[in-house]
Amino acid sequence: MAKVRNILFIMCDQLRRDYLSCYGLPTLPTPHIDALAAQGTRFTHAYVQGPVCGPSRMSTYTGRYVSSHGATWNFVPLSIQIPTLGDYMRSAGLRTAVIGKTHVLPDLAGLQRLGLIAAEGLGQRLAEGGFDPFARHDGIITDSKALHDQPVYNHYLLQNGYKGINPWHEFANSALDESGHLQSGWSMRNAHLPARVQESHSETAWCTGQALEFIQAQGEEPWCLHLSYIKPHWPYIAPAPYHQRFGAHDVKAPVRTAHERTDTHPVYKAFRNHVESQSFAQQNVRERVIPTYMGLVQQIDDHMGRLMAGLKAQGRLQDTLIVFTSDHGDLLGDHWLGEKEMFYEASAGVPLIIVDPSLSHQVGVCDALVETIDLIPTFIEALGQPAQQQWLEGQSLVPFLQKTIPGKEAVFSELDYAFYPAAKELQVPVNDARATMVRTQRWKLVDYQGFEPQLFDLQEDPDELTDLGQSPEHVNLRADLKDLIHQWRSKLRIRTSMSDTQAEQLAARRNAMKDIVIGQW
Amino acid sequence: MAKVRNILFIMCDQLRRDYLSCYGLPTLPTPHIDALAAQGTRFTHAYVQGPVCGPSRMSTYTGRYVSSHGATWNFVPLSIQIPTLGDYMRSAGLRTAVIGKTHVLPDLAGLQRLGLIAAEGLGQRLAEGGFDPFARHDGIITDSKALHDQPVYNHYLLQNGYKGINPWHEFANSALDESGHLQSGWSMRNAHLPARVQESHSETAWCTGQALEFIQAQGEEPWCLHLSYIKPHWPYIAPAPYHQRFGAHDVKAPVRTAHERTDTHPVYKAFRNHVESQSFAQQNVRERVIPTYMGLVQQIDDHMGRLMAGLKAQGRLQDTLIVFTSDHGDLLGDHWLGEKEMFYEASAGVPLIIVDPSLSHQVGVCDALVETIDLIPTFIEALGQPAQQQWLEGQSLVPFLQKTIPGKEAVFSELDYAFYPAAKELQVPVNDARATMVRTQRWKLVDYQGFEPQLFDLQEDPDELTDLGQSPEHVNLRADLKDLIHQWRSKLRIRTSMSDTQAEQLAARRNAMKDIVIGQW
Repeated sequence: MAKVRNILFIMCDQLRRDYLSCYGLPTLPTPHIDALAAQGTRFTHAYVQGPVCGPSRMSTYTGRYVSSHGATWNFVPLSIQIPTLGDYMRSAGLRTAVIGKTHVLPDLAGLQRLGLIAAEGLGQRLAEGGFDPFARHDGIITDSKALHDQPVYNHYLLQNGYKGINPWHEFANSALDESGHLQSGWSMRNAHLPARVQESHSETAWCTGQALEFIQAQGEEPWCLHLSYIKPHWPYIAPAPYHQRFGAHDVKAPVRTAHERTDTHPVYKAFRNHVESQSFAQQNVRERVIPTYMGLVQQIDDHMGRLMAGLKAQGRLQDTLIVFTSDHGDLLGDHWLGEKEMFYEASAGVPLIIVDPSLSHQVGVCDALVETIDLIPTFIEALGQPAQQQWLEGQSLVPFLQKTIPGKEAVFSELDYAFYPAAKELQVPVNDARATMVRTQRWKLVDYQGFEPQLFDLQEDPDELTDLGQSPEHVNLRADLKDLIHQWRSKLRIRTSMSDTQAEQLAARRNAMKDIVIGQW
Repeated sequence: MAKVRNILFIMCDQLRRDYLSCYGLPTLPTPHIDALAAQGTRFTHAYVQGPVCGPSRMSTYTGRYVSSHGATWNFVPLSIQIPTLGDYMRSAGLRTAVIGKTHVLPDLAGLQRLGLIAAEGLGQRLAEGGFDPFARHDGIITDSKALHDQPVYNHYLLQNGYKGINPWHEFANSALDESGHLQSGWSMRNAHLPARVQESHSETAWCTGQALEFIQAQGEEPWCLHLSYIKPHWPYIAPAPYHQRFGAHDVKAPVRTAHERTDTHPVYKAFRNHVESQSFAQQNVRERVIPTYMGLVQQIDDHMGRLMAGLKAQGRLQDTLIVFTSDHGDLLGDHWLGEKEMFYEASAGVPLIIVDPSLSHQVGVCDALVETIDLIPTFIEALGQPAQQQWLEGQSLVPFLQKTIPGKEAVFSELDYAFYPAAKELQVPVNDARATMVRTQRWKLVDYQGFEPQLFDLQEDPDELTDLGQSPEHVNLRADLKDLIHQWRSKLRIRTSMSDTQAEQLAARRNAMKDIVIGQW
């Protein structure tokens, strides 16, 4: 069989696991993604380590839980000390580039303390989280300099005739309404309008084109490409024809009950008060936004077809490991919530498909509990490189591709909600807004610092509609699940300046020391 | 009153809290240290964050618990990313130097990844844990290049006529016996013999002389000096006349019972099997070693007198905060143990004396539970600098100097025993040899990964002779104490790339964002 030489690591942003036809949504055909699943392995129980872009991605890019990388929210810098995907891939000889979004924020204070400058050489790579920024675009370009991004996509739009101060906002994120008035994609009421950008110039098309160019330019030189689509993340606005591919009749019923609106769990209640939750609580909002969300997903699927055709034409299907996943889901009104911060399956669960061309047979579907921190170890094993256990807290998924084996006893995900209105409403200090999810085969418990936990029985209540967090008959179960969290936290990898092998050698040396003699009479 | 401009941070190595006359050992007069205690505040319940040199010191030097700095044992490198005492002091304008021991091991891989070289400039300072190595000497100089140290003390000995390949070993750590034969200080049976080095050239005298030179050379330039004595740490060998200041009749009875020898707690039992424990179990060993240990302590006390006289002569008593402490204690046969790894009061508890010349009145004695990670915040406050909460996990002790206030509810200390024979005997893998102590006013629980805990009632059993770790009537208490550990671990500072103020500003900005509009209809 062929040997894996390249990694094509595709990530969507805010793509729900159940919004792909291969994951069971018949009204949203995604034939190209389904074809990947048919060739490889589709994971039904993959979880992100934080249901928010930044922390989730930093976990995926470092192979460490959020508590172990510390970038707990979107605008918290990533410590430059932690090796990233780029370190592991480059040491295996692969050029490692990013197209699209990473959400990595440079740790300028850390760089400065070490005499490094973010703008150049090693400093730039560290500031980019270890990626070569081939065509980075984090998906939102503001007019403000304070949050400014590398405006490479804006340059592209300008070159293609979209004239403006901020062409991303004025074209990709704006529409003309029926009366010819300019409307902003930031307002969800405009979700049914077509973006002013031509489909072939949209973010999804641009990212795909950049990827094909990168792969072609690499020729026979091995590469790891993080193709990181910005969509279907908000702003919910799609270019024609994807803005009208779906209609209100295609929208799935929300997963929610009237009873949930009376649930007084303080954090859940405060998140229900968020503006996006209030909006998605209205069925007319869902019926306008979700068809566009579905259109954005189908657009990605079409570009998957284009990408795979390009890979095939360049002869790269035989030696490229393909991974397709997302950084978290989107609640879209489920449980009376918008966005993704809480740990419901629609937010903490993600699609994950892996195609390994070196395997003559793949299991097809894997129901084991796995995590996105498992991806770096997977890449390392697929490339035939020695396993790394110094910083990495995940485990390779390669064995799961080949046979049905038990997964993890439990998976974990974390949230730092200090930066949300919920924290303000609850008057939670900035260091105390922490929540941790543990999910076993049957149970999901969310442990909140300072508040009662939430508990769901995923066997009897797969839609997570009944919170058993206060139920008297589950006292012991909750204690056991909390204990799983405690055990997990106590086993995080802290001794990161030394590998296990080095530690074993040091222990052997210490026990055989000849020139330092302790305690002998 | 005077203002604190300098910090004299004195640390002894392996000095038991109860081996000073001011802490209650009448047979060991330490008048100069007692005088410091009389001028300032003596803490009766100060704890190190790990009862082993390296991890304890890295906690003191970074202000972080061991789980938060990761240098879990002596030869585990300190991550260069973590700011140290040197960063905090230099930003306050103080030259920060070390004389004597730090046990910092350079994180060469981390330096190399960042393109830094340990031998020069910033790289050297990072490799030294943030100190300017004015006269570093880690206390043991081996012949082996592999563990080689900065041999500055060896140069000093050579210059003073002690000719040899390794003068430290051949003179400071060797003696001539009654028959004129050379004997090694590594063998405790030689503890009663005088070291071949003259007292004025011994490590304690040399460190003190270096300190006086440093302070004089600084003149009016502010400084933070970490004067880090190597003694009374083993090898247990003292220069004349300190080798015979004390005799067997001065030796305190060991704190141990026959019953403890039948205690089957696996980790405690395995540590009792260590060679140093077997040695110190013998009363004749104690009677030969402990008088020398006491002599080494009294030698330090005499040099404290010399140091304070020098400070006074240079006019520095008025503007120098003086701190006297140790990195851990020494079990010296208590509980049938040698060394210090387990968490008994004689090992995890340390002497701590603080003299703040800017206060007109100090409380004198403080019984509050405090930790050595509290020292950096103390120095910062004493210097009148703004409090830092980004990386620091301790709290300033300055308020405790001025009035009697409640201390911490609990203090914590950690051990990674992967590198000890005990781990080998118990076949514990290198990542699972972790123990955590929590100590409240009344209770001390030691939580072992994979083993039952130890529990001591310090009110009813201050000598910690009865392990209640299995006692049926303490089931709930043990659960509560374990819960304190879980809470503590879940609150460690992980978001270190951002200060609390920055986080609060970010939260306010996020909640007022104008150009990124989420979820509005």
